[in-house]
Amino acid sequence: MSKVYVIGLGPGADRQMTLEAVAALDRCPVIVGYTVYVDLIKTEYPDKTYLTTPMTQEVKRCQMALEEAVKGQDVAMVCSGDAGVYGMAGLMYETGVQYPDVEIEIVPGITSATGGAAVLGAPLMHDFAVISLSDLLTPWEKIEKRLKAAAMADFVICLYNPSSKKRRDYLKKACECMLEYKRSETVCGMVRNIGRDGESHRILTLEELKDAEVDMFTTVFVGNEQTKQMNGKMVTPRGYQNV
Amino acid sequence: MSKVYVIGLGPGADRQMTLEAVAALDRCPVIVGYTVYVDLIKTEYPDKTYLTTPMTQEVKRCQMALEEAVKGQDVAMVCSGDAGVYGMAGLMYETGVQYPDVEIEIVPGITSATGGAAVLGAPLMHDFAVISLSDLLTPWEKIEKRLKAAAMADFVICLYNPSSKKRRDYLKKACECMLEYKRSETVCGMVRNIGRDGESHRILTLEELKDAEVDMFTTVFVGNEQTKQMNGKMVTPRGYQNV
Ligand SMILES: C[S@@+](CC[C@H](N)C(=O)[O-])C[C@H]1O[C@@H](n2cnc3c(N)ncnc32)[C@H](O)[C@@H]1O
Ligand SMILES: C[S@@+](CC[C@H](N)C(=O)[O-])C[C@H]1O[C@@H](n2cnc3c(N)ncnc32)[C@H](O)[C@@H]1O
Repeated sequence: MSKVYVIGLGPGADRQMTLEAVAALDRCPVIVGYTVYVDLIKTEYPDKTYLTTPMTQEVKRCQMALEEAVKGQDVAMVCSGDAGVYGMAGLMYETGVQYPDVEIEIVPGITSATGGAAVLGAPLMHDFAVISLSDLLTPWEKIEKRLKAAAMADFVICLYNPSSKKRRDYLKKACECMLEYKRSETVCGMVRNIGRDGESHRILTLEELKDAEVDMFTTVFVGNEQTKQMNGKMVTPRGYQNV
Repeated sequence: MSKVYVIGLGPGADRQMTLEAVAALDRCPVIVGYTVYVDLIKTEYPDKTYLTTPMTQEVKRCQMALEEAVKGQDVAMVCSGDAGVYGMAGLMYETGVQYPDVEIEIVPGITSATGGAAVLGAPLMHDFAVISLSDLLTPWEKIEKRLKAAAMADFVICLYNPSSKKRRDYLKKACECMLEYKRSETVCGMVRNIGRDGESHRILTLEELKDAEVDMFTTVFVGNEQTKQMNGKMVTPRGYQNV
């Protein structure tokens, strides 16, 4: 029986791919994915069968992959970043219950939290929380609760999905939640197009972040009490004493 | 002026390295690191100059790397996992203030949270918090506060440094904090030696985790309210509705 590999390509689907991800892509004759990510790798691997679906048809995409494996071909389902962080890994297992003979393997990738952190300097370093501002699948009250809990306990906070056309003011609302517990001068950063052409970043305060422009290709970092700006980098010391 | 690359090798320092990490290692004649990680790559790259220090001498290790760069050689400082997650990235920037002419670049790696998640299935998927149980650099009260805040807001929680010889009962204490807010049947997982020989994992309840044996090569995952066990995998659904 063939196998489905759910492969994280890293934020840029390029030099941040792992050796293991490259080997898995090489091995699979069929590649399934959201149109945009498939386009990122198509030129590198022209001799594959590509099956794509639009953004919203995620269950269908998993079924397509599993059906191909049932037919006897190894399949690579590709995701940006890591497939296990707001990606397709979980849904593939849930859909896979209907295909008990197909083995599923997750190939980890660099996620935007660590890929973006490397661009900014060292903003995570210590305890951190990762929160998505998308309320498509989560009630906004739950998101607010998590923002406040994480801010209250002085986590570094990394925000995915900070904005979309329908949710222009969500980052502002999120900043207001965090400002209940974090200082307005808290050092923050945002990185756009990590690992892609036009990668850019900015370091700013939490007060400034409230009114910053972000889009769906941006990952946002909010420092803890100790985070500083050092020579243009965002750096969180590793602990509360200096060794 | 030469450059210092702070390179995350992934949890196994092997097939989970990125193409970018491999290219940076190739480029640098000098490799600096903690003895254990240097040994992991020495056979692959025999023709390098290796400078090692024991675990505790972390400032010294950064200085060694920066001094070599001042002398005119590109230097790779290697870390397990990602250098920006409980790694050397932050300390390198802090130490680098004394060496203003040396450029520092962070090359991200697969961190144990995503590498371990791939072994267990899809435990993270949605919002998660990463917490270290080491109180070498953080007061235990702060760790407890973070554990409770993250459990209260129903984050998936990923624990690094769950144990050491001196801190045998820390995981038990941490579980007791989380049990104030999470159900005792909460699905949990632990992964040992991710990406290395003898990799192993176990899925268990939060009640069972309290008394589980862990060591310093283990990463622990505590699910949220929705996390389930499915065909031997630990899976957190991506949201609160099923699309
Ligand atoms: C549905 S999530 C997918 C996350 C992905 N699986 C990962 O591990 O990075 C989409 C969000 O991830 C972040 N993201 C993904 N790729 C990015 C990139 N290249 N640059 C910046 N942020 C990115 C953005 O916050 C975006 O809104
Ligand atoms: C000082 S932290 C370093 C973390 C590393 N920089 C990373 O990003 O994974 C050490 C802790 O990371 C986790 N860890 C590192 N390598 C691991 C591996 N190969 N398998 C399981 N856990 C690992 C364990 O929890 C360990 O106690």
